[in-house]
Order: sequence, then C-alpha cells, then structure tokens
Amino acid sequence: MSLPEEFDDILNTAHEIGPKLAALAPDIDSRAGDVREPYDLLREAGFLHLVVPKRYGGAGLGFERYWRVLSALASYNGPAALGLNMHNAVIGSMCDAADAPLPPMAENFRTWFFDEIVNGGKMFASASSEVGSGAKLMGLRTTYRPAPDGAGYVISGKKAFVSLARVADYYAVPARPEGSTDPGKISHFLVSREDAGVKFGEIYEMSAMYGTSTAGMSLDDVVVPASRLFLGIEGMSLPKIIREPHWMVAGYTGAYLGIAEAIYRFVVDAMAAAPGRAESAVVQRNLGWMSARLAAARALVFDAGAAIDADRGSIEANARVHAAKYIVGELGPDLIREAVSLCGTAAVSRGKALERLIREVQYCAVMPAKPDECLEYAGKAALGVNLYEEGAFSW
Amino acid sequence: MSLPEEFDDILNTAHEIGPKLAALAPDIDSRAGDVREPYDLLREAGFLHLVVPKRYGGAGLGFERYWRVLSALASYNGPAALGLNMHNAVIGSMCDAADAPLPPMAENFRTWFFDEIVNGGKMFASASSEVGSGAKLMGLRTTYRPAPDGAGYVISGKKAFVSLARVADYYAVPARPEGSTDPGKISHFLVSREDAGVKFGEIYEMSAMYGTSTAGMSLDDVVVPASRLFLGIEGMSLPKIIREPHWMVAGYTGAYLGIAEAIYRFVVDAMAAAPGRAESAVVQRNLGWMSARLAAARALVFDAGAAIDADRGSIEANARVHAAKYIVGELGPDLIREAVSLCGTAAVSRGKALERLIREVQYCAVMPAKPDECLEYAGKAALGVNLYEEGAFSW
Amino acid sequence: MSLPEEFDDILNTAHEIGPKLAALAPDIDSRAGDVREPYDLLREAGFLHLVVPKRYGGAGLGFERYWRVLSALASYNGPAALGLNMHNAVIGSMCDAADAPLPPMAENFRTWFFDEIVNGGKMFASASSEVGSGAKLMGLRTTYRPAPDGAGYVISGKKAFVSLARVADYYAVPARPEGSTDPGKISHFLVSREDAGVKFGEIYEMSAMYGTSTAGMSLDDVVVPASRLFLGIEGMSLPKIIREPHWMVAGYTGAYLGIAEAIYRFVVDAMAAAPGRAESAVVQRNLGWMSARLAAARALVFDAGAAIDADRGSIEANARVHAAKYIVGELGPDLIREAVSLCGTAAVSRGKALERLIREVQYCAVMPAKPDECLEYAGKAALGVNLYEEGAFSW
Amino acid sequence: MSLPEEFDDILNTAHEIGPKLAALAPDIDSRAGDVREPYDLLREAGFLHLVVPKRYGGAGLGFERYWRVLSALASYNGPAALGLNMHNAVIGSMCDAADAPLPPMAENFRTWFFDEIVNGGKMFASASSEVGSGAKLMGLRTTYRPAPDGAGYVISGKKAFVSLARVADYYAVPARPEGSTDPGKISHFLVSREDAGVKFGEIYEMSAMYGTSTAGMSLDDVVVPASRLFLGIEGMSLPKIIREPHWMVAGYTGAYLGIAEAIYRFVVDAMAAAPGRAESAVVQRNLGWMSARLAAARALVFDAGAAIDADRGSIEANARVHAAKYIVGELGPDLIREAVSLCGTAAVSRGKALERLIREVQYCAVMPAKPDECLEYAGKAALGVNLYEEGAFSW
Repeated sequence: MSLPEEFDDILNTAHEIGPKLAALAPDIDSRAGDVREPYDLLREAGFLHLVVPKRYGGAGLGFERYWRVLSALASYNGPAALGLNMHNAVIGSMCDAADAPLPPMAENFRTWFFDEIVNGGKMFASASSEVGSGAKLMGLRTTYRPAPDGAGYVISGKKAFVSLARVADYYAVPARPEGSTDPGKISHFLVSREDAGVKFGEIYEMSAMYGTSTAGMSLDDVVVPASRLFLGIEGMSLPKIIREPHWMVAGYTGAYLGIAEAIYRFVVDAMAAAPGRAESAVVQRNLGWMSARLAAARALVFDAGAAIDADRGSIEANARVHAAKYIVGELGPDLIREAVSLCGTAAVSRGKALERLIREVQYCAVMPAKPDECLEYAGKAALGVNLYEEGAFSW
Repeated sequence: MSLPEEFDDILNTAHEIGPKLAALAPDIDSRAGDVREPYDLLREAGFLHLVVPKRYGGAGLGFERYWRVLSALASYNGPAALGLNMHNAVIGSMCDAADAPLPPMAENFRTWFFDEIVNGGKMFASASSEVGSGAKLMGLRTTYRPAPDGAGYVISGKKAFVSLARVADYYAVPARPEGSTDPGKISHFLVSREDAGVKFGEIYEMSAMYGTSTAGMSLDDVVVPASRLFLGIEGMSLPKIIREPHWMVAGYTGAYLGIAEAIYRFVVDAMAAAPGRAESAVVQRNLGWMSARLAAARALVFDAGAAIDADRGSIEANARVHAAKYIVGELGPDLIREAVSLCGTAAVSRGKALERLIREVQYCAVMPAKPDECLEYAGKAALGVNLYEEGAFSW
Repeated sequence: MSLPEEFDDILNTAHEIGPKLAALAPDIDSRAGDVREPYDLLREAGFLHLVVPKRYGGAGLGFERYWRVLSALASYNGPAALGLNMHNAVIGSMCDAADAPLPPMAENFRTWFFDEIVNGGKMFASASSEVGSGAKLMGLRTTYRPAPDGAGYVISGKKAFVSLARVADYYAVPARPEGSTDPGKISHFLVSREDAGVKFGEIYEMSAMYGTSTAGMSLDDVVVPASRLFLGIEGMSLPKIIREPHWMVAGYTGAYLGIAEAIYRFVVDAMAAAPGRAESAVVQRNLGWMSARLAAARALVFDAGAAIDADRGSIEANARVHAAKYIVGELGPDLIREAVSLCGTAAVSRGKALERLIREVQYCAVMPAKPDECLEYAGKAALGVNLYEEGAFSW
Repeated sequence: MSLPEEFDDILNTAHEIGPKLAALAPDIDSRAGDVREPYDLLREAGFLHLVVPKRYGGAGLGFERYWRVLSALASYNGPAALGLNMHNAVIGSMCDAADAPLPPMAENFRTWFFDEIVNGGKMFASASSEVGSGAKLMGLRTTYRPAPDGAGYVISGKKAFVSLARVADYYAVPARPEGSTDPGKISHFLVSREDAGVKFGEIYEMSAMYGTSTAGMSLDDVVVPASRLFLGIEGMSLPKIIREPHWMVAGYTGAYLGIAEAIYRFVVDAMAAAPGRAESAVVQRNLGWMSARLAAARALVFDAGAAIDADRGSIEANARVHAAKYIVGELGPDLIREAVSLCGTAAVSRGKALERLIREVQYCAVMPAKPDECLEYAGKAALGVNLYEEGAFSW
C-alpha cells in the first residue's frame, strides 16, 4: 500500500502491475468482469497517492511525472487509468495548494482529506456534469441548503457522467445555494457513496470505457456534515478552475497518450509477427510514420506537464496543456487509419485488443476540453488575449 | 419485384425504401434483429437485378449508376448495401460479359443464371476467402473432383469471411482440382445453401457489420451438378479477375461512400438542431470541410464508375477504381475526427446512429483492396508498369 | 484563328500548342521573356472565344468543358491559363446571358461585344480590386460621372492587381457614381488600354506569376463612350455576382488544377528517369498517393463544372464550386510536400520547372474565394442557410 | 568574442543579435547583400564555439541546448543558422569525443583544432557531396595520395553543395586513397580556403538559401600538410557516422524549427495587426492549430536533443532524431497552407519576410536525411532491426 521513493521505481511498479491490469481489460470491456478489480490493484500498489505531497505521506509527483506514470498505466488499461485520473482531478487542486497558508477550519479539512487518501485508502471522484450543461458550471441545477440542525448541508440534484460510480468512496459535488444562480457562489461538497439518498443508475451504454464505471447519480436530500464542505469555505470553486485547467480539463491527456502507445505497440508487434510484413518497405514506412507522430505527441504531453510544474496556472502553461490535449486527440484518428490499414481484420475483431483500443482512443476528443476549445484557447493565447478575464473563454 | 424503367425513378425507389432499411439497422447491429429482413426488402423492390442486362430482364445499370444506387442505399443501411454488393460482385462479371458470344454449354449456363436472378429472385454470394490466404486465389485449399457418376463435381473445403451466410441462395466457390496447385486451373462452382454437406458457423464477432451475415462455411463432400460449374468451363477464373478488379476488389467503394454520407448527414442534422451551434463560425467551417472532402470523394467514385463504363478493364480505369477505394478509405478517419469533435458524446453512445456508423466506416480500409495495395496499383500505373503482366501486382 | 467544331479536337488543339506555351514559361518567369507571347499564341489558335456561344461565332463550351481545356493549357503554362481565365471571367457572365431577351440598347452592346472578341480578336480583363477593399465591391473608391458632352462617362480611380496589364485590349472597371456609396449603384465600364488617362504601373514583385502581367492601373479622368457601359444599363453588377460566383471567384480553379497536374507529371517523370527510384515500393506508394489525391480533386472540379452547367447559380452548384476551389487549394501543399520529398534538390533549383510550379500552385489559396471563405460557403450551404440573402455571405 | 557562462544568458545573446541578423536577411536573399556579414556577427559574439567543451574554452553546450540556441538564431535568419550548423556538424563529432583518450598524434590534432576555433575564430565547413553520389560516402570520387615529399597529402576532386563556400576557413573533405573503392578507407582532410588549387564556383541558383553560400568546389592537386588529416589517422570516417547521425544528417532540424517559428510569428503578428482578423473565431482556430502543431514539433526536437545528450549514438536516440527531422519537415507544408490561407497576398509578395520564409522552410525536406529515410529509420527501429549492422540502412 505504499509506493517506492524513487521516481524510476514508481514507474517500474506501474509496469509491474500493468500486465495484471491488462488481463482484466477485455472482460470488463465486454461487461463480464468486475469494474472494481483494477482499482483495487491500483489502491493496493499505492497509486492513489501519486500526487499527494510527500509531507502528507504521498509520492509527491509533479505533473510531468504524474503523466509519465499515468500514460504507462493507460498503455495497459486505459479505462482504469482514466478512473485513476478522475481521483487525481478531484484531489489535485488540493495537492497543488498543499503549502498554502489556510484558516484553521480549512487546515483541518486538508489534514483530514489527505489522511483519508493516504491512510484510509479512499478514492475520490467528481460528480459535476448535469444533463444540458455538461461539465461546465454555468447552468448548474444541483442545489444545497443548510441542514435543519445547522450542522451541515442538504444537497439535491441529478448528476450525469459520474465516473467511478459505485467505485469511489467520495464524490465531489458542485452545488449552488438554493435560490441563487450566481456561478461565483457555487461550492463543492464531498458526498460519500454510502450517504443516505445517494443512488447510481446503470453504467451508460457507451461504445467503450465501461471500466470507468460512468453512470448517472441522483442526490435526494443527501445530508452531509459541514466537515465535508470543500475547504470549509463556500464559493471557492470557479476562480481556481479558470486559471488552472490542467486538472479539470486536461488530466486525461496522459491517459489517452497511453492508449495511443498501446495501439502503436499492438501494430508493431503484429507486423513483427506476420511473415513478410516486417520486411516490407511500405510497412516500415508506415510504422515509422506512426512512431514519429506518436513521438511528437508524447514529447508535447511531457513538455506541457513540465510547463505546469514550472509555472502552474500561467497562460503559457495552460496553452501548452490545451495544445497537448488537441494533438493527442488528433493523433487518435491518424493511428486508427494506419492501424486499420496495416492490421486489417484484427482492427475490427472483437477479442483483439486493437479493436477495443480503437474504440477507446476516440474518447480523447469527447472529453473536455473539446478539440475546438483547445484550438480556441491556443489561438487566443497566441494573439495575447488575456484569458484570465471573465468572458475571454467560456467554461 | 420489378424496378422502374428510368434511372431517376430507380434512385427514387432507393430513397423510398431507405427509411425502412434504416429502421432495421440498429436492432441488427445489436444482434436482436433478423439479418434477412433488409435483403427481403431489397429483393421485393427488385434491387437484385440492378446490373442484369435489360435483355435478360434486369435494370441494366452501368457501373457509375450502380454506385449511385448503392451509395444511396448504404446511406440508410450500410451492411445491407454491402450484402447487396456481394450479390452483384458475383453476378457482375457475368453481366459485363452478357453480350459475349459463348459456346452452347456456356450459353445455357448464362440463360439459367439470369433467369434465377430475375425471375427466381435468387441472391448470390461469394465464398472465396480461406484462413491464411485471404481473398487471394494463391494458396487456395478447397478442392473439387469429378462426381463418381460423372454428372457433376464433389467439393470439399473450408471458407472464411463468407458474407450473406444463410441469407444467399447460391455461393460462388472457387476450388482447385485435387492434386493441382496451378492457380490457372481454379474453377468457380455455385453451391446452394440447401446442398447436403454445406454448413455455416456463427456470425463472426466483429465490431460492426453483423448485417452482412459474415461467417465461416464448410463444404464436406458437397455434390453439385455440372450445370453449376461457372460458365460450364473449368479454369476460367483468374485472368478475368486480374484485368477487372472493379467487382471483386472495389464494388464496396460505393457502399462506403454511402456510409460516409450518412455520417456527414448525421453531423449536419445534429449541428442544425443544437442551439447555437449552427451559427458558430468554427462549426460552419468544420462542416464545410467535411462537405468539401466528401464532395471530392463522391466525385471520384462516380468518375471511376464512369471510367469503368467507358473502358472496362483498362489500366486507367482500374487505377481510378483503386484511387477511389483509397480516397473513400482515407475519408473515414477524417470524418470520424470531425464527427467526434463536433458531436462529442453522441459519437460514442450506443443507440445513436453515429456511434454505429463510425464503427462501420472503418471497414472500408479492411476490405480488399487494402489502402497500400490501392496506392501500389495507382503508383505503378502512374509509372507505366504493365499491370496485366503476371507478377506486376500480387492478388 | 478558329477552333475546331468538336470538343475533343479543341482539347487536342490545347495539347498541340501546349509545348509552345511551356517553352515560353521559364523566361517569362525570370522576367526575361515577353509576357504577350503566350497570349498571342492563344489568340491565334482561337482560345479567346471558348465560351462565346456558337450563334455568336464562338466554341460555345459549357463550364465543365471550359475547365477541361483550361486545365490542359495550365498544365503547360499556368500563368497564361490564368490570364486567359481573366478574359473569360469578364466575358463569361455575358456569355451565360447570351440568350436572355434584352432591351435594344443592351442588345446592341451584346452584339458589339461578341463581335469584338470573335472577329476583332480582342482580349478582356478585369480591373476590380483596389487597395484596401480587395476584390470585393464594398468600399469601392473608383467613381464615374457623366461626360460633359453627355455622350459618355468620365472615370477616375486607382486599381490594384489588374491582371493582363498592357496585354488586354479592354478592362472591365467597376465604378460608383460620384457621391454615392450604395453598392447597388455600381456599374462596369469597358476601358481600353489605349484610352487617354490610362496608366499601368510596374508588374508586381511577386514570388511567381509574372506571366499574368499583374500591375496597378490608374484612371485619370478617362473618358469612355456610352457604348462601353456594360449592357448599357447602370447598376447591374452586384446581384449577378452574388448568385453566380463561378466566374468571378472560381474560374481559376481549373487553371490551378492544371498546375497541380504539371507538378504530378514532373514528379512521375523524374521518378521514372531516376535509376532505381521507380522500383522502390515507397516511391510507388507516394506516387500512388499523389495520383489518388489529384484524381479526387480533378473529379470534383469537373463535377462542379457539370453542376454549373446543370443549374447555374443554384446554392448547390455554388457550394460545389467553393468545395472544388478549396480542395484544389488544399492539394497544393500536399503535392509540395511529396514533390520536395521525392525530388529533393530539383524542387528548389531555379531552372527546374518544378521549382517554378511549386511557387505557382500556392496562388490558388491566395486568389478569391479564400479557403476559409470556401469552407464558410460550403458549411452554410450544408446547414441550409439561404445564401442569396443579403448578409448571409460577405463579398 | 566570448559567450556568457550561463545558458540563459547565451540564449539572450542570441535574441540580442537576432534583429541584426534579421535585418541582413532580405538583401542577402535577393543577392544584393554580403553573405559574410551574418557570420561575422556570429563569430564576434562567440557563437562559433557553442559546442566546444568548456575545458577547451568553449561554451560546452549539449545537443538539446545547442538546438535551443540554433532555433532561436534561425528564427531571425535561417540561412545563417544553417551555415552555423554546418560549422558545428564538422566540429561536432570532435567535440563529442573531446574526452576520449587518444594517441599522441591525434591528441595534438585535437588541441590544434579547438585552438583554431576558440582562439583563432576559425569557421569550418563540410565538402562531402559530389555530383551523382550526394552526401553519401559510397561512390566517392575525390582521391588523395601521399605528397611527393612524404610530408602530407595531395587531394583532387570536385565537390558539390559546399555550404559556406568562400566563407569558411577550413573545409572537411572526405577522400579515398587513389586506387581504392573501399568506403572503410575514406579519410577526412581539412582544406583551407587559401590552399593553392582550391576553387569555388558561383553560388547555386536555388529558390532560397543564398545566405548559406552553397557552391561547387574543385580541388586540383591541393597539397595539405599531414597535420590536417582528421585526427591524424587514416580511415576513421565511416563507422562514426553510421552510429551517430545527429551531426551529419540532423543538425539542421534545429534551424528549420526556427524558420517554422518565424513563419508562425509572422502570421500571428499579421493577424493581430489586421483589423477584425484577431477577433475572428476561424482565425483564432487556425492560429491555435498552427500553434499546437508547432508546439508538438518543438517539443519533439528538444526531446530528441535530450535523448542525444543522454545516450548518444543509441538506436533509440537516433530514431528520435530521425522522427524530429521528419516531423519538422512535415510541419513546413502545413504551415505554408495556413500562412498562405491567412495572409494571402503577403505570402507571395517579394519584400515580405513571409514569402522568403516559405521558400526557406521547404529545404528541410531536401536536406538529408530525406523524409522517407527518416521514416525508414524510425520504422526499422520500431521493429527492432539492428541498425548498426552494415546494410541495415543505406548511407
């Protein structure tokens, strides 16, 4: 339940449990397996506290290194890596702010929070999206009100696209005060899977990614104690997200890079094994092209991670993150084209990993930030638009 | 059971039964529907004799017009159009040669053959591929020998990727004489679905295209009468195919064009319906790009069809056919990228037509001629290589 | 001075004078040759009346056939073909309207006009663009006023990007009445190269296309007789152009297709001649790719031409024209990439035709409609926007 | 004549002299300026010893940092940066081997060599290519023989594509012993610009890059002292190059990255300055796309540089270098397409920097390794081919 000290050893650990994660993927994809198993493996190996600061007992990885580990895990089991990223997307901004001086109540929250992850082995998830408004906070309909006894809050609403449904221990739920539509007043609450009034729907019928266990969630007068208000302070959510999109909109990038690596690896292995293909000059050329494109995407992802580490929240770092998200999303169809062309039937046969990977890689462009949003951000940044300004970029 | 006289009316008929075909597609895709229903609709409307010459009672369409009808049908139900094309791929070379003077035995065969299609409503399929050798005739393992009573042939072998399994009435089965491996001696036989010794496996577990009803087929000492030897003459198969790939390797192109049209149409309709999207300059640009790319592919497909009509079997026409196959195959991933980017979740949700269409369009590059084969043919043709020569291009 | 009757013979004539046109191209490109020579060749062979209706003595070609001839000519000498297209862009709408019933004064104009072309061998050009407003009529600053003697008009202004400067006999000059800025009041006048007050600047210092003889033109109180007011009616210009962009914005497309053909042909010939290259599987693949992409663009261009012939001015035909313009413009950089990669040094050596062709093909995207305008038009058409409506598309 | 200690200060120095380099570029491009001036600026600022080890008095940059400086310089003046890279390509392998124990004679050579650069301010160039064999050593025709007095060598031959002709002080000339065709026996000699028998032709008539001062060079019985035999040992050339292509085949990559940056910067500035363009959603999207593609190429270049620094000569590092070379070469046409589309006339007007940059960026794919060679190397590396083996990859 604890990761090694050295980064290279952590990466090795990822490659050690990788084959076990990979072995679980096909059955879960076909809905025959248990979606919890990969997460149990990850929890046991200590991967829930990759980004928790060292002084709170975590591995303390920066963003670049986090993406290196995440892409390694995703190359074995993409949905599990995406689920793990959900956990980190929720705890990430807290980890980033681990050294910030806080008022006592927030300090207590932070201590409890990290203890739950590191010692309690708790997994977190986000329950932000709602039908109609997507993952954006504008138009949020879930509400909260003070509990009758004054000792907490009562939350009601319906959430959509909740990943890690029934898997995570806590769900970060944004809600607005009853009667207010001011996005500046939105707060986040940690709702437990076990809280009375919490219900999950069936896992969505999607083309892939069953392993992220994504479903609807309803909150029917769910009472949470005041201690589970994020940071103990109401209305903290929006400004943070505007300036630092790396967690909420782009953490996935590392996972999709890993899925792309898996596609590439599958095709290389298939060509190496097929008599006569590895010697074909055209096959070599096409693999070389896949390899070059992948190398460029990989370099950009880690470069963007390094930019976050160096200057978190800067427009330059954010623009790099959006560029990385876009480039990995663009890589998907390029790899699909080559993989289908080179592997033929294997690319469309259920039971071949490639067929599943092709379905999975498409999700990169589905999840926020969308490709056109990425380009908009990068283009506005190039033109010197002040993207911190309200209205410069719509969330 | 009869198509109208005028081409425009035939095309209108395709658009009239289109919605019925479309309504059947989702259930068949999820293996809940009956794969035969679309073909019953097509048979009843007379679409089994699109390319049968008028003097034999068919609609007598040339290749360009055939592709126009096929792409129209495919825009409603891709797998059904592919199945229909299988039928035409088998009967096509016969239709092309309808005016050729033949010896009496072949003449009898031809008369019987067209009568079965036009008056008997019979559907034909191909059972060429075998495990290991693919759709190429080199390495064929299925054999035939004279029947003991001298009145026919006995065929044994295992076929793979037989489309229209259990759906078609007859299967064109290439086989070599027992003891010979000379590809020049291969003959085709028409095996009936009802013949003793014919068995079909389960429909393959593929990512899509359940509606083509593609499965393995075993022939266990199947006795066919001499009248079902193709053209009544042994060893007719190979030369024909070398010179005229339009049926055996490229008939699909028209169907995949139709699937691409359906993707485009879905995205346009989705953008028109989504509040605010149709007015977005970037959405308009992206739709314009899809539209331009699709227009180029469409124009090339019909141009290649016209080239076949004008100069069937010429290297120039063949090169155009291969170019069209390649361009439509390349279009798939481009449309996927834009469709996923524009439609987001709808592109990956089971139950949305788009999700199915994305799975379907990928098959264009899987089916022969493969993209790299298409480019090889086109490149060699550009360089003036005599592609009629044995060894110039491998089948 | 007269073209043959049959279309195939006209096309052959284009290929016959082609080598002579090609021989003139290098010297003109390096500013050593006489820009008039290619046009003299074209005039002598009768190519100035390709689209003039037969009953006025012309060859009466429709748009598709016009583009076939134009692209053939452009494959030998792109700038000359572009110059020729300028002539046709000016006379084209008149040819399109050759059968429209007209009031007597306009009828006289039409008769004189066609006689000047067919019997007088006169060449026409357009002098529309102005610094600041480009080729769009909004913001036009050139003005006209009635001549003092009432017998004509006095025109003053400065035109930019006038092709065929010093080469054409007449220039179609749009001007607005002094004191009015209503674009609906703009008229076109035919100004002669010999008219007093007409002056041309130096041919622009551009990267290529010297042979179009493009320069600035100043009109200093140029007096033209009333007979040279287009159609004899003031204010006829704008509505026509909005509905029928094929001449004013897209005639070039055929010429750029021809330049692309020339690049392709150069590369194929170079590979065929270089020892060992033609046998390389990768070279064959890359030529196949160029060939397929070019085939798609070519098919779309002629398909768009046929759409104009079938339904001139319809949104569908216009959208096809814009798609063709876009696709040919997109083809340029693709061909450049492959040509530079395959031919290496030859692609950048002055004195090799390829080096010049690469500079020339880039102009496709420079000339209106710009790529993003093409996509906007195609996208709006896809969404069902009424593009005839004022404000739907900005010219 | 000395660079600062800290890397960031060196980079700043590059940006300080950048505008001076940029100011010289247009006149040199049009052959009106003096090609030596940029190199004088670079020499004076100390940029000739960027990669010379610190203990020999140089700045001691590794490859990644070298590429950062080179791309910065190239963003102001591409040809000058390419010329500077030629110098480094010649001295680079020596710098890489600065710590290798050497026999006394080689040690003396090394000491003299670095002293010439650091204290003598000498510039080096390569004279490898010959007509027919290109930059590859197979088929080399230049020969050497012992000088009659035994005190040196006599070299004769004709070299093509010698960059820095008349600019550099020394030229590294590969030659084979008279009478031998074994590529293993090839040696390199340093020929001085001033040596008797050395003559340069006219600078080639190319589409751009006049500033690299590339010309033919003839060596007519040129006598060089034994001290100018590379490393004092005959036959050292080939094995080194096979294993470490980063200098001889890929140093350019950093320079072309800089030219790409300049194109991007030009377009961004043009859009920011043009009224209404910066606010266009489509313009923002297109700039975002350019920015994302450029960011990926940039990240890969520096990633490849870091791979060289970490594991020089490994197949993995070499594959990364080839991928980077390919991706930057592929970026060129993509940037051309967007730049021409966005900037229109400016992209083709002599006198605008963009027009020149477009001509320059195309050379990336012309210079070795060619795009298809890059893909071949990357593809073979992916398949585990032992690229150290003779015959695995042709040079």
